[in-house]
Amino acid sequence: MTSSLRDALQFPESQRALLEPHLPPKNLNPRSSLPFVTLTFATSLDSQIALAPGVQTALSGPESKAMTHYLRSRHDAILIGVNTAIVDNPSLNCRLDGVGGYGGEGLKGQPRPIVVDPYARWNLEDGNCKVLKLAAEGKGKAPFIITTEKARPILEARIKALEDLGGKFIFANSVELVHGRRTISWSSIFEQLKKEGLMSVMVEGGAGVINPILSDARAHEWVSSVIVTIAPTWLGEGGVTVMPEKKISSQTFAPIPAARLKDVRWIPLGEDVVLCGRLKDDGNYGRGLERLLGKE
Amino acid sequence: MTSSLRDALQFPESQRALLEPHLPPKNLNPRSSLPFVTLTFATSLDSQIALAPGVQTALSGPESKAMTHYLRSRHDAILIGVNTAIVDNPSLNCRLDGVGGYGGEGLKGQPRPIVVDPYARWNLEDGNCKVLKLAAEGKGKAPFIITTEKARPILEARIKALEDLGGKFIFANSVELVHGRRTISWSSIFEQLKKEGLMSVMVEGGAGVINPILSDARAHEWVSSVIVTIAPTWLGEGGVTVMPEKKISSQTFAPIPAARLKDVRWIPLGEDVVLCGRLKDDGNYGRGLERLLGKE
Ligand SMILES: NC(=O)c1ccc[n+]([C@@H]2O[C@H](COP(=O)([O-])OP(=O)(O)OC[C@H]3O[C@@H](n4cnc5c(N)ncnc54)[C@H](OP(=O)(O)O)[C@@H]3O)[C@@H](O)[C@H]2O)c1
Ligand SMILES: NC(=O)c1ccc[n+]([C@@H]2O[C@H](COP(=O)([O-])OP(=O)(O)OC[C@H]3O[C@@H](n4cnc5c(N)ncnc54)[C@H](OP(=O)(O)O)[C@@H]3O)[C@@H](O)[C@H]2O)c1
Repeated sequence: MTSSLRDALQFPESQRALLEPHLPPKNLNPRSSLPFVTLTFATSLDSQIALAPGVQTALSGPESKAMTHYLRSRHDAILIGVNTAIVDNPSLNCRLDGVGGYGGEGLKGQPRPIVVDPYARWNLEDGNCKVLKLAAEGKGKAPFIITTEKARPILEARIKALEDLGGKFIFANSVELVHGRRTISWSSIFEQLKKEGLMSVMVEGGAGVINPILSDARAHEWVSSVIVTIAPTWLGEGGVTVMPEKKISSQTFAPIPAARLKDVRWIPLGEDVVLCGRLKDDGNYGRGLERLLGKE
Repeated sequence: MTSSLRDALQFPESQRALLEPHLPPKNLNPRSSLPFVTLTFATSLDSQIALAPGVQTALSGPESKAMTHYLRSRHDAILIGVNTAIVDNPSLNCRLDGVGGYGGEGLKGQPRPIVVDPYARWNLEDGNCKVLKLAAEGKGKAPFIITTEKARPILEARIKALEDLGGKFIFANSVELVHGRRTISWSSIFEQLKKEGLMSVMVEGGAGVINPILSDARAHEWVSSVIVTIAPTWLGEGGVTVMPEKKISSQTFAPIPAARLKDVRWIPLGEDVVLCGRLKDDGNYGRGLERLLGKE
């Protein structure tokens, strides 16, 4: 236990109180079809979340890192795209002091790692996967992997192995080909996770996850909270960029902001700032309209 | 006067105090070769300063707008690139309550507009130029235009007209062709402005000005302060983006952050946040090195 406690992170009560209005409340409705979804990531001033694809980038300071782990402790699940799983080999557990494996009992406070992996590209068998190692050590939960029926044939061996660890494959029930790629509808992903009993999901990235969500004019219907940490750094060209698609007014056809937050709060934290808010409904579903008109 | 006062902006004392450490001090050394340079702009979360080139974008809220005018009142000059002058036709004066033209005497507190225009593309003669109109009305100073000797032949008529209004052309003394464009060295621009008696310069944009400055590994030597306003909005692809060039470590040849701030302070202001800091010297002059090695 000593080594775990040495790794454990502290996040002060005063900061927790500031975040509280932006976190899943204790009394979430178990019958709602959707979980509480928090979109969260750490970014530079030039809206980049990594110096280059696959270059792990220590963007935010120690206080923000501790906050991320506090956020993880407050959600039933944390979700990432498969590229992040592959290139970063992240731990995806919670190392906050007092949670299961870090001073606490069992897996209390450990979120379920969720990886969206439509082609089953994530290699779990090479023995290096940190998520599986931590699950085996009792310091994190085994992952749920969201994939597609088409990937089932190549998964036969893995399904049982993952289930033995307490994880599972979830076969998406709403898959479309978009620009030739298997694309799972986000609202269906969250509905399926809710059916698994997950009441709250923290979406952590990468850009292949965040950009489509921010680009969806109806995301305010299924994203409950947005928490972005900004570091006072410009990473420079060539990084992994958070930038939603261009949005055009369905009335004037002029460009309009792609997404905006309301109920905004900025919380300085060490050298960084934490931006909390909710996605605003701007009433502009232009992209849906274009699709209806067959322009997309 | 009534109409001017109706336009005048208020910026509260409490906020002024928070900004004070990041503003030109009263006792600037008149013998220093450089003015106090503040780099300042308003940006979205996806690091864009306009929805599209030439689309005036109301990014920041009323409080941040008032702050910008307070900052203008605290600098001898405000500098922009010629594209901003052409596409936005900005006023470039200070509309803070109490400055000259807005309740105050003469041109007290009005900054000198500076436009960097190496090819003399800014058309001052069409009668629509707001900067000239405001100068004629006594609500702002006439501009200084930084241009190149090569542009002199096409300027003959304009030089006298601009001088009659109190403005002037400044012929840059350090011009290089970079990728075929006349490029004036930034430190020489600031030195020439200092020789004109301007003790402090606020650089406002656009991206054609900010990006080269942030990309310069030695910018910390001549930029004294950075003040960025961030609005809780993603503008989406296709805008005017602030993103410096990629920076490579001169030791490891791996990508490293292009620029970082120190002495950071985040000031929430209305829905926006104001980030104040100073450019950090990371000791990495890799681009200079590459140039020495003839790789650039
Ligand atoms: N700073 C931070 O907070 C942070 C957080 C996380 C990640 N990151 C960084 O982000 C980078 C990786 O980002 P990335 O943009 O390359 O990849 P990513 O977002 O991690 O993964 C994208 C992939 O996930 C799958 N996917 C996502 N949404 C899907 C959907 N709705 N339906 C079907 N498949 C879906 C697709 O897989 P297929 O390609 O197989 O179709 C897609 O290409 C890494 O460098 C990492 O360090 C930073
Ligand atoms: N949100 C904000 O705070 C803010 C502030 C200002 C502007 N903006 C927006 O920015 C946009 C315009 O930005 P932009 O990037 O297109 O243009 P810009 O930065 O306004 O102007 C760039 C041009 O200025 C000249 N220039 C700049 N530095 C020079 C140097 N060192 N030596 C020689 N010439 C130099 C060059 O002119 P030549 O092309 O003639 O060589 C260059 O192309 C507009 O849409 C405006 O609304 C936003």
